[in-house]
Amino acid sequence: MRALVFDRSLQFCGDYPDPVAPAGESIVRVSVAGVCGTDLEIARGYMNYSGVPGHEFAGRVVESQNASLRGKRVVGEINAGCGRCAMCDRGLARHCPNRTVLGILGRDGAFAEFLRLPDINLIPIPNALPDEVAVFVEPLAAAYEILEQTRLARNQTIVVLGDGRLGALVALALKAEKYLPLVAGHHPEKLARLSALGLDIVDESALGDSFEVVIDCSGSESGFRRAVELVRPRGKIILKSTAAAAAEINLAPVVVNEITVIGSRCGRFQPALDALAAGKIDPRPLIDDTFALDDGLAGFEAAKNPLNFKILLRAA
Amino acid sequence: MRALVFDRSLQFCGDYPDPVAPAGESIVRVSVAGVCGTDLEIARGYMNYSGVPGHEFAGRVVESQNASLRGKRVVGEINAGCGRCAMCDRGLARHCPNRTVLGILGRDGAFAEFLRLPDINLIPIPNALPDEVAVFVEPLAAAYEILEQTRLARNQTIVVLGDGRLGALVALALKAEKYLPLVAGHHPEKLARLSALGLDIVDESALGDSFEVVIDCSGSESGFRRAVELVRPRGKIILKSTAAAAAEINLAPVVVNEITVIGSRCGRFQPALDALAAGKIDPRPLIDDTFALDDGLAGFEAAKNPLNFKILLRAA
Repeated sequence: MRALVFDRSLQFCGDYPDPVAPAGESIVRVSVAGVCGTDLEIARGYMNYSGVPGHEFAGRVVESQNASLRGKRVVGEINAGCGRCAMCDRGLARHCPNRTVLGILGRDGAFAEFLRLPDINLIPIPNALPDEVAVFVEPLAAAYEILEQTRLARNQTIVVLGDGRLGALVALALKAEKYLPLVAGHHPEKLARLSALGLDIVDESALGDSFEVVIDCSGSESGFRRAVELVRPRGKIILKSTAAAAAEINLAPVVVNEITVIGSRCGRFQPALDALAAGKIDPRPLIDDTFALDDGLAGFEAAKNPLNFKILLRAA
Repeated sequence: MRALVFDRSLQFCGDYPDPVAPAGESIVRVSVAGVCGTDLEIARGYMNYSGVPGHEFAGRVVESQNASLRGKRVVGEINAGCGRCAMCDRGLARHCPNRTVLGILGRDGAFAEFLRLPDINLIPIPNALPDEVAVFVEPLAAAYEILEQTRLARNQTIVVLGDGRLGALVALALKAEKYLPLVAGHHPEKLARLSALGLDIVDESALGDSFEVVIDCSGSESGFRRAVELVRPRGKIILKSTAAAAAEINLAPVVVNEITVIGSRCGRFQPALDALAAGKIDPRPLIDDTFALDDGLAGFEAAKNPLNFKILLRAA
């Protein structure tokens, strides 16, 4: 099959082996896939991953032993747990120590014609939901994860640091759920686009107030330091950035001001899928461009442009 | 009056000015005061404090416009708020941005014959509670603060990093409230003493398991890194150390494993006072030595000995 493959460098490959589904897994023909910040990091060597990257997708099940999945349009939870550990027992395959992760850890991903995932990871989507909307379920689930992990109050002051892909989706999710997020960024063009979507925006350098909740989607190693500056005593910092670098950090203000820091990664798909299906969020204005899979390398280049929110690859 | 005074160096002073109480404050004759890790840091320049250090005390009100306080034996909340800000409105004078803090920030402390505090900070103590027990209310309140900030489960695996003053009190408080803390330290003699108090102990280097809750009382800048290693996915790290140094920290595991980090400092006095008054905790085995205030410098030296848990100064 055709696929993008990372092995020290990212290449397009016209004859990558088709996936073969073991018992309990299905084969999905990828329709559309989204390029995410994590993919860009993987292409820089993050996770020492080699294989097909990509974990945001919508597609159709073309091979399955599960009759209820065959032929269905689906999205898929990206973490595949062992099914036998304490985390899997608690329904937290996302934290299974033996997990594979689609396009990130030990499992070929979505920048290809086909992928395989466990049947239990696949979630049928309504016919009315276009592929280019459904492909946002995964990153939007990461946004909704915040509300699964901690209770926010509707009237709390919330600032989202970062006007990128993740910051935009987090703010749209919070806004859809009647919270009051303020998006702080450095890119006037992107802030203007987010403002046009109804979001409150501010230039990050103009932030002076303190906030009850600071959500770091900056993808920058300085994001945490800035969050500590901006959060008020007894406030919450929600860390969304996977910028995997050691930085000089002084934790004393976290103790003195009794800050709660909540690391937050992937989320359950259902709340995000429900929000998209109900039309509470329309992420399509965030799509900057769509590339054919064969032009995936160009798509990656476009995704590196900090002025772009979301680049899609179309496999079919 | 006699007092220990820090001004670039710690000195004993035989004729320090007596405190004068403004409206709403009372004068307390200090009976006994405890030397805390923060005092040792202040003596190294922490907080750029100058004045009388000391914030753990028991004493008697000798001057007050409040008849219900006059002549009473008391302990005192150390944070004095402005009474006018949003934090004070919420009963969180401990986080008032304009606060003074006894012996730590803008307010002379307890290593003296007399101190002053707002009437609302003073809490009468039962006659049956000896001074050398009551002096533990403040540090024990910092231990109980954990249970005010977050809900732990009685059957969760909890490790307390640090076999010092704070680690011991945190573990004793958790044990008294029917949790299952394990104290991990580097000092066999201290671990043996804690074991004799009924606590479960372990040599820190032997820790291999992962824990649902890790409480960093290590006072070391490497404590947080170790906590991240030891905590399990979706677990909690409670940061008690005020070791105020920037360290190289990689927050990626906090995000990937969705760890919650809770900074925790001072607490309300009442839960700690209740526990001591009820005899649920007897901290007296932690007292290594008691020095006269006049020998306070020797007391500080003794407190620096990592094998000592608690040094008291007796002013009267």
